[in-house]
Formats: sequence, C-alpha cells, structure tokens
Amino acid sequence: MPSGARNLPAMTSTATRPRGEYAKTAARRDAIVAAALEVFAASGYAKGSLRDVADRAGLSQAGLLHHFPSKVHLIEAVLAWHDEQSVRVVRAAGRDGADPLAALVALAEHNQANPAMVELYVSLSAEATSPDHPVHEHFRRRYDTAVELFRAHLGRQADSGLLRPDADPASTARSLIAFMDGLQVQWLYDRSSVDMAVEVRRFLDVLIAARAVGPVGGSPEPADD
Amino acid sequence: MPSGARNLPAMTSTATRPRGEYAKTAARRDAIVAAALEVFAASGYAKGSLRDVADRAGLSQAGLLHHFPSKVHLIEAVLAWHDEQSVRVVRAAGRDGADPLAALVALAEHNQANPAMVELYVSLSAEATSPDHPVHEHFRRRYDTAVELFRAHLGRQADSGLLRPDADPASTARSLIAFMDGLQVQWLYDRSSVDMAVEVRRFLDVLIAARAVGPVGGSPEPADD
Repeated sequence: MPSGARNLPAMTSTATRPRGEYAKTAARRDAIVAAALEVFAASGYAKGSLRDVADRAGLSQAGLLHHFPSKVHLIEAVLAWHDEQSVRVVRAAGRDGADPLAALVALAEHNQANPAMVELYVSLSAEATSPDHPVHEHFRRRYDTAVELFRAHLGRQADSGLLRPDADPASTARSLIAFMDGLQVQWLYDRSSVDMAVEVRRFLDVLIAARAVGPVGGSPEPADD
Repeated sequence: MPSGARNLPAMTSTATRPRGEYAKTAARRDAIVAAALEVFAASGYAKGSLRDVADRAGLSQAGLLHHFPSKVHLIEAVLAWHDEQSVRVVRAAGRDGADPLAALVALAEHNQANPAMVELYVSLSAEATSPDHPVHEHFRRRYDTAVELFRAHLGRQADSGLLRPDADPASTARSLIAFMDGLQVQWLYDRSSVDMAVEVRRFLDVLIAARAVGPVGGSPEPADD
C-alpha cells in the first residue's frame, strides 16, 4: 500500500497558485500510481485496464491519459515508485552503520507489509520474460544492474574477508537475487507459514557471513550509502 | 520440448485392435499435451486458447475436448507431464548412488534444454499465486510437498554431518527451491549469460556442503558428473 499516495499532505490555501497547481498535479499522479498498483496487482498487467485504474483513482479515462499517455507510461511509473521505495528502505536501514546486506532484511519486512507490490512484481517479472512484452527491457536491465551492484558489494566483502572464501561474488549476487525473488512466490502461496525477513536473515547468515569459517581481517565494513 | 510427444513410436499394424486404439489414444493425448505446453508457454495460460491448442495438435476443438474436457484438465496434464519428466531426470541422475541434491544440477541442465517448460512454469507459478486461479491449489500443495521432501533429505544430510552446521534444514529447503525458481526468471531474461546448471552447482557447494567447515565423517562426497 503506497502510504505516500493514500496520506498526502493537505494542499493548504496559503500555497502560491503555481505551487498549489504543481502539488495538486503531483498528488493526482501519486493517486493514479497507487490505483494502478492495486489494479495491476489484482488483475495482472495484461488484464488490468486503464478504465479500471481511472475508476479507482476517481478520474475519467481522458483525465488519466492527461497524466499518463499510455499503459506503458503508467506501469513504468509504478515500477519507478517501487524502486524509490526500495532504495528508501535500504538507505534507512543502512543509516546506523549496519552492513548494507542486512538492509535486505528490512526490505523483506517492507515487502511483507506491502503485498500488492509483491503480487505485481511477481506477476510482472514473469510475464515480462516474453521478449515482446512492453517492460521486458526494463526488467532485463534491472536484473543486470542489480546483479552488478550486488557483485561489486560482495567483491568488497570478499576483499575484507567477510564473504565465505568458497563463494564467488558474481554467483552469490545472482543467487541472492534469485532467492529473494523465489521467496516472494512462496510467500504469496503461504503468507502465514513463510516469513521472508526471517528467511533472508538466515540465508545471509549461511551464505554470506564468514562466521562459520571464522572472522578474517578484523572489523566489519562500514555501510556505504 | 516434449520429445516423447514429438517423436512417438509408430503405431504398427501388427498391434491388436484394442491395444492399437489404446496406443493411438495415448499418442493423441501426448501430442495434445505437447501442443498445450507450447501454446501456454508462448501466450500464457490465461491468454492461450483451446482453439490454439487444437490447431497446433491438428484436431478440431471437439476432438480436443474429447480427450480433455476443459482447459483446467489440460493444464493439469501439462503439469503432471512436467513432474514426470523432472522425477525421471532426478532418478536417472541419482542412479549411480550420487547425492540426490546433485541431481538438481541435472534437473537444471534438463530445464535449460526445455525453454518452453521453463517459460510456462515461471508464468504459471506467478499467475496462480492469485487464490482464485484454477491451479492455485495445485501450486500451493506442490510447494508444500517440495519443501517437505527437501527438508527431510536435508535433515538426513545434517544427521550425517553433510549440511553446514549453521544451516537449518527447513530454511535451507525453502531457500534452495526459491533460488532455483528465481534463477529460472533470470535465465529467461538472459539465456546467454546465465548458466543454471553452473549456478546450481555453486549454490549447493556453498550452501549445502560441509566442505568449508571441514569434512565431517570421513571422505568427501564423490563428484557426480
């Protein structure tokens, strides 16, 4: 649930006219993105219609198209919003100097509290594997970027002796992302038995931490956000 | 690609009449399942139509419905066929006394050679997370069964000192399945860079093997390829 869109700051009458218009437009866009998330999460991207999104956002279809000229623009805005939220959660979790990987536990907690986003992500990442899907390239690039980010971080961990010596940074990066994606699917099938945050923590402890082979090289790495 | 269906043994004229009829029916059903796999993999289950399946199998829609009275019967036959193939691959790989977990590498190789099955599995497991989807229960039970099978096996590995002492069998079972599912998604986005068999082997080496914390109970596991 995009709380930012549901609980927008009131547009006060003291705002200057242009600023008020700008804020109104931003609020309207946020409300549309929130509606689109819910519609696409419930019906899937292929079946979710612009009419459903407009209805849920309390707009005419023409009003919706004024802000987002096509369904692709809309889903891209939803994905951008999702990414912003994830980055915010990861940054906040890393603020106290914790290992950035530990921020993935916070991300799993955040996702668990936002089932619509998980539903949309799981269904969209699967349907977009088809090369002619409108967001295929978006997801392909997204995986490339994510694997590279994780690989670079795990490489630094390895240099500091904080990765298992038998773990390859590139493969571990890919594994970690695959694990988190697959866990979301299992969670959607059984939300009462699967605790994503607990599983992510255990996975990191076993796969990443050098604990079982003894700490190497002293102090832990500082957070890098 | 279900090679069994594409390359069916010829129904010879020496077969007795009932046996010939039976074999013909089985061959027809195999051909329909193969056609359904391709249609649902290409279009998705929701969009793939019975007409498309009938066309691809060279049948009328009535002829198709004679063998499979509904789309749900058809997708269940495809999933059953997929499971039989997987079990056959795992059994064959385990025949020489190798660790059953190592058979997962053979399964990854098999999947890599059968992209339509991977495409269908990824899209269907995602779309069926919706509780009202016709195969939701099928997938929910499938995950329960898979986690339990892996947990039991990993528990025995732990008893023999062949699981990392810091790895919990139930969480490791879930992680392994999640990892293999998520890896299929990454593979579909980038088949030239992702080698599922290589990644599964590395994952098992790091997550499962007790190697990094020293062999327990004597000689290391034999290589299985």
